[in-house]
Amino acid sequence: MSQIREPSADLKQVLSTLYGSIQPELCQVEDVLSGELSSSYPKVEEIVRHGTRFGGKRLRPALLLLAGQASGSLSKAHVTLAAVVEMIHLATLVHDDVLDEATIRRHVDTVNARWNNETSVLLGDFLFTHAFYLASTTESTYACRTIGRATNIVCEGELRQTTTCGDLQLSEENYLEIVEAKTAELCACCCQLGAYYAGANPETVKRVSDFGRNLGIAFQIVDDLLDLEGSEEMTGKSLGTDLTKCKLTLPLIHARDNISPEKRQYFLELMRRSNHSERAEILNVLVELDSPAYAHGQAQLYVDRATACLFQLEESPAKDTLQAMADFVVSRNA
Amino acid sequence: MSQIREPSADLKQVLSTLYGSIQPELCQVEDVLSGELSSSYPKVEEIVRHGTRFGGKRLRPALLLLAGQASGSLSKAHVTLAAVVEMIHLATLVHDDVLDEATIRRHVDTVNARWNNETSVLLGDFLFTHAFYLASTTESTYACRTIGRATNIVCEGELRQTTTCGDLQLSEENYLEIVEAKTAELCACCCQLGAYYAGANPETVKRVSDFGRNLGIAFQIVDDLLDLEGSEEMTGKSLGTDLTKCKLTLPLIHARDNISPEKRQYFLELMRRSNHSERAEILNVLVELDSPAYAHGQAQLYVDRATACLFQLEESPAKDTLQAMADFVVSRNA
Repeated sequence: MSQIREPSADLKQVLSTLYGSIQPELCQVEDVLSGELSSSYPKVEEIVRHGTRFGGKRLRPALLLLAGQASGSLSKAHVTLAAVVEMIHLATLVHDDVLDEATIRRHVDTVNARWNNETSVLLGDFLFTHAFYLASTTESTYACRTIGRATNIVCEGELRQTTTCGDLQLSEENYLEIVEAKTAELCACCCQLGAYYAGANPETVKRVSDFGRNLGIAFQIVDDLLDLEGSEEMTGKSLGTDLTKCKLTLPLIHARDNISPEKRQYFLELMRRSNHSERAEILNVLVELDSPAYAHGQAQLYVDRATACLFQLEESPAKDTLQAMADFVVSRNA
Repeated sequence: MSQIREPSADLKQVLSTLYGSIQPELCQVEDVLSGELSSSYPKVEEIVRHGTRFGGKRLRPALLLLAGQASGSLSKAHVTLAAVVEMIHLATLVHDDVLDEATIRRHVDTVNARWNNETSVLLGDFLFTHAFYLASTTESTYACRTIGRATNIVCEGELRQTTTCGDLQLSEENYLEIVEAKTAELCACCCQLGAYYAGANPETVKRVSDFGRNLGIAFQIVDDLLDLEGSEEMTGKSLGTDLTKCKLTLPLIHARDNISPEKRQYFLELMRRSNHSERAEILNVLVELDSPAYAHGQAQLYVDRATACLFQLEESPAKDTLQAMADFVVSRNA
């Protein structure tokens, strides 16, 4: 369960400011999560509590609630659905922890026998199915349909990503499509639900959803950038995993497309070896070609697009916070 | 993807007789499955098609459709939901294929690198989310709520089962509770949906659902029995896996509770070693104690209870077929 982390004190400070206006609802979301994610069987309860014990950034519930506040007013459905999207996010994190053969061969001594693959798969499924059940307790099929469609696109995006690992020819366009599916779709879904259940008109729902989509793309570009050049201490997770899996991300794609033809073969070879020891050398090439700056600039571009989607919303503190969240997404170092 | 098997010619013959009255709807279910389970990305399409390519027994769609016919008449929702329950079943099969560390260490040479754990997890999630999306295209939240709740109980049952592996003290009562959750709940759900969408009154819905629950328990008892004493050729899957995992099933529990005190320690030791080589010796003990016959008798008891649930339904060919399906569940050898 490596990826479910408690945010650092600094990050908590930033988030607590951003989340000021939705604090009461976020507390209710925590209550729903801790009430729903339990089991009357002590050993199962232990697994569920352990697997969901850390707070994380609660970015998706916050997006849903802020999108709701910025488009109208919050209702009970918002709290329920904010818990639903967090459960779905938790499910994907738990499933990310399932190791494949190669990884296990390398990590065989560090994998805790208690939290083996079987348990992770079942816990993730437990979270997924619980999320869908909870979504179905709302009034209509709207939430189920929206969440079902979005999570299916997320899974398709993740499947597509696994098929591109090792593909050194992955285009920027395909990279962005995958990012949109695997990350931005759920952010768009959160914002869409927030606006819809606040009673916004279809046009506003679409715009707020597009805000989430663009923010999600920016978020993932920055996440990939942090994986390359971030600090493990700050992010609290293992980095360099994309390189190890030979998974091309935006700075690498930019460097590949902008390196001089005589150096390209050597650079491709460095990536193909996909070994931790090549990380420093690859980073040097990236910095020389301004590739991290390019990726950061692209993330900023998506934040600008997100901002533009908010333009026609009435002024409100929640609207300002959505804007601040978009800015936070590109400025964060964790 | 070891567990998704094409039924044998003999079994196909039996099923084709049983499924006679729902053949047109089952064909529509196949069309829905093959239409829905696709992707516009060729490599993803390849994974999805491969992972869902075999027919299996289609037991759950058949239950749903027959329960519908026996309680009223079939509608479009029945076909949709029959496809949904099969997708959920496929998702759990694909996730069953995810191997944990110990299994991988033993199977490292047989695991196909193309279908690694990551792909299996994502494909299963893709099937789950698609199933939930499809369920949400029906009119009300009834199907989503029913399926969400049932699948959550299934996952909890599976989690509970993993925590009991190696527990040689597992009681018959707890074994049956786990079987009810992990297998019978989805069968009950199929029958409930079938009856509800045929317009049956709440009492009939409950009775037909109880039919499915009892049939599901009988089904799993027999499945566990086949794992102990079945033929790999007939069932088309690896057997003896429960023993290898030190997972107690009904015949083993019966033997443990009925073996003479002086032999009990040795028998427990045999099970604890949980090795393929002990299988023959364990089987001998079971046969001596009539434990397989006891398990078979218990399965028959649940079939009788299932039958009793049908009592008040109007006579119809579908009712007869439900009865025949219950009988098939205990008489099958595959």
